[in-house]
Amino acid sequence: MLVPTDGSAPGLPTAAGSIFKIIRDQGPLFPADIVRRTGLAKSTVSVYIDRLAAAGLIREEPRPGGKRRMLKVAESAGYVMGVDLGQTHLNVGLCDLEGDVLDSIGADLDLLHETPEGVLARVVGAARALSSRNALALAALSGIGFCLPGPVDYARGLPVSPPVMPGWDRFPLASALHREFTCPVFIDNDVNVMALAERDKGAASQEQDFLFIKAGTGIGAGLVVDGRIYRGAKGAAGDIGHISAGLDDVLCHCGNRGCLEALAGGRALALRAGEAARSGASRFLAARLAEGLAGTPELLALGAAAGDEECLRIIIAAGKALGDTIAKLVNFFNPSLIVVGGGLANLGERYLASIRESIYRRSTPLATADLVIKRSALGPATGVIGSAILVLDEIFSHTNVGRLMRPPSA
Amino acid sequence: MLVPTDGSAPGLPTAAGSIFKIIRDQGPLFPADIVRRTGLAKSTVSVYIDRLAAAGLIREEPRPGGKRRMLKVAESAGYVMGVDLGQTHLNVGLCDLEGDVLDSIGADLDLLHETPEGVLARVVGAARALSSRNALALAALSGIGFCLPGPVDYARGLPVSPPVMPGWDRFPLASALHREFTCPVFIDNDVNVMALAERDKGAASQEQDFLFIKAGTGIGAGLVVDGRIYRGAKGAAGDIGHISAGLDDVLCHCGNRGCLEALAGGRALALRAGEAARSGASRFLAARLAEGLAGTPELLALGAAAGDEECLRIIIAAGKALGDTIAKLVNFFNPSLIVVGGGLANLGERYLASIRESIYRRSTPLATADLVIKRSALGPATGVIGSAILVLDEIFSHTNVGRLMRPPSA
Repeated sequence: MLVPTDGSAPGLPTAAGSIFKIIRDQGPLFPADIVRRTGLAKSTVSVYIDRLAAAGLIREEPRPGGKRRMLKVAESAGYVMGVDLGQTHLNVGLCDLEGDVLDSIGADLDLLHETPEGVLARVVGAARALSSRNALALAALSGIGFCLPGPVDYARGLPVSPPVMPGWDRFPLASALHREFTCPVFIDNDVNVMALAERDKGAASQEQDFLFIKAGTGIGAGLVVDGRIYRGAKGAAGDIGHISAGLDDVLCHCGNRGCLEALAGGRALALRAGEAARSGASRFLAARLAEGLAGTPELLALGAAAGDEECLRIIIAAGKALGDTIAKLVNFFNPSLIVVGGGLANLGERYLASIRESIYRRSTPLATADLVIKRSALGPATGVIGSAILVLDEIFSHTNVGRLMRPPSA
Repeated sequence: MLVPTDGSAPGLPTAAGSIFKIIRDQGPLFPADIVRRTGLAKSTVSVYIDRLAAAGLIREEPRPGGKRRMLKVAESAGYVMGVDLGQTHLNVGLCDLEGDVLDSIGADLDLLHETPEGVLARVVGAARALSSRNALALAALSGIGFCLPGPVDYARGLPVSPPVMPGWDRFPLASALHREFTCPVFIDNDVNVMALAERDKGAASQEQDFLFIKAGTGIGAGLVVDGRIYRGAKGAAGDIGHISAGLDDVLCHCGNRGCLEALAGGRALALRAGEAARSGASRFLAARLAEGLAGTPELLALGAAAGDEECLRIIIAAGKALGDTIAKLVNFFNPSLIVVGGGLANLGERYLASIRESIYRRSTPLATADLVIKRSALGPATGVIGSAILVLDEIFSHTNVGRLMRPPSA
């Protein structure tokens, strides 16, 4: 919504965008490399390089003694804001044009009891504080990326019936932020931006096609196809938490029965931990309960690490339920890499092993021939970094770079 | 394998390719339209238009009284061969540069008892016959597309452990055909090329993102993302026939239990029809059995149309099993359109209704908000047309058009 269209064919790069993308993905590069990789005439490449440099988007890499110039992105030519809104946290980060966090402000909150207006005010406050303490003018902000834990209408920049965010349905988040800061604003689902962070800074290390699975309170997937997030028709792609996972006797908060999230999500694990504590099936959890500690996934992990068999059994069953569903997606999508992140990814190696085992058992041999299944290595800043990368991808996309270089009168 | 790489960044269009693609997808067009849509300089566009015309790839559309020239693909500038190898048929078709069949030769065969060499000899014979009776030199063939009913290593142009094609594993099909005809050869799975046919000539009518489901003896999916087939890491994407569909008491020919194909494929339906005939549960099928007719999906459709309740029950159950699995893929992939083709798509409206009902019942409301589920409207030439489109997509792709225009010395 906030990026005007100019009648370009969708997905069709302008020459400037092609050149900028090559420099961003593969730079530093010589102009001759760019001529070879684009197939554009040398004179054309030269013109666009000058225009990109004049717009402050690329710069020459200093080379001691070197005569020929190498080109790279001018990472300090601007900055972007990444906002990560979770069920229990709000993190706002100031990032450079390579998606690295320069400074950030975080706070706890309970999303069930926050209004959109209240959250918006906090985001604005944090952005102002970051701007002021880093002596950077808010007007120089190139864009804002914002992720939240629910479905998003990406094109219109608003949440759509997010189950854990009552009162946020179709709240015009992007336009509200745009009114405040005037720069382009992009809203996405948290799992999608986590996948972007994995692509550029994490376990996927520049893979252009992979599957990111977030296993936490909610369960979701981020599909990266040809280096970009695949969002599907309504922005709902990857919403795997409510896939029917077989057992129809478990009621899900969505109203359906046997959903993956109701079997293998964080709440399901907490429930099972609580039962094992009360029944005494787990000595470890019963002892913690006696100390006043409620059953949580973290306690399950501690119990399993301490050798408690019931804790281990619950963890392995959760991995199996998730793995059985991922196996179906592997047959369908045939990724070469799956990165598992989210809070439950910290349940330990046996959890990952159980996921892997189920996938290998129920996917076709061809689909798993070279499949790698990794745990995310990114920390709590993933949402902020991913949101920053989201906005960098967008404002420096093929079609938009051309626009950034044009004088307003064109 | 048969398209040499030139070090271009993957997916990055050359200017010539961009211009040709716009003309192919959106033509006829004025040069000014192309300038606007590519963002290239007018002089650059003009140079490439002249070069594309000189290479015989585009031509001016005659306009009565019109002064300005409109450009379109020169559909008679060459031709391609589409080959459709099925379990019981071989169709070879001569097609123009828009993928329309000019002439074709078809024959019955039993793939289980054919050697690759035998099939190859038949294909070569049919291609020679088509060439001779249409007075077209085989040397003028721009390319060959070939589809077969099994997994394919697309990059290397060979089948990989195809379950219904013993003796074909890693047979170098593309290079054998290339030796014979010298032109580029592309081998793909039949479901993928059927999806391409739906995109350009069928129910998907130029949709750039959709899901094609082939329900026949085998069950498979073709994923179209951004107008192109998504093949996955090993070319196995869409191989949904062996997704676990819940009931573990049904043994599949792959060795696993409860596979979708074993529950809802053509063989499963024939088995169920046979049982209903022998037990008398279906009066219609029992009467046909008395006439010496074995149970088939076609007989089930006839029985259901004649009001036989058991036939209808079997058909509805098959639709439900398929729909329950597609529902999971809809949550994951969120397509806006699903086209159902293959032999079972002719089971009737109640079959489609059963598929639809299961999808709507078990997918999230957002994922099905604007989802359209259609039956394929293409006939038995789908495989040939799709194979022709496959080769047209490849040889006239962004990167390859540029190469076609270059003199061999460049």
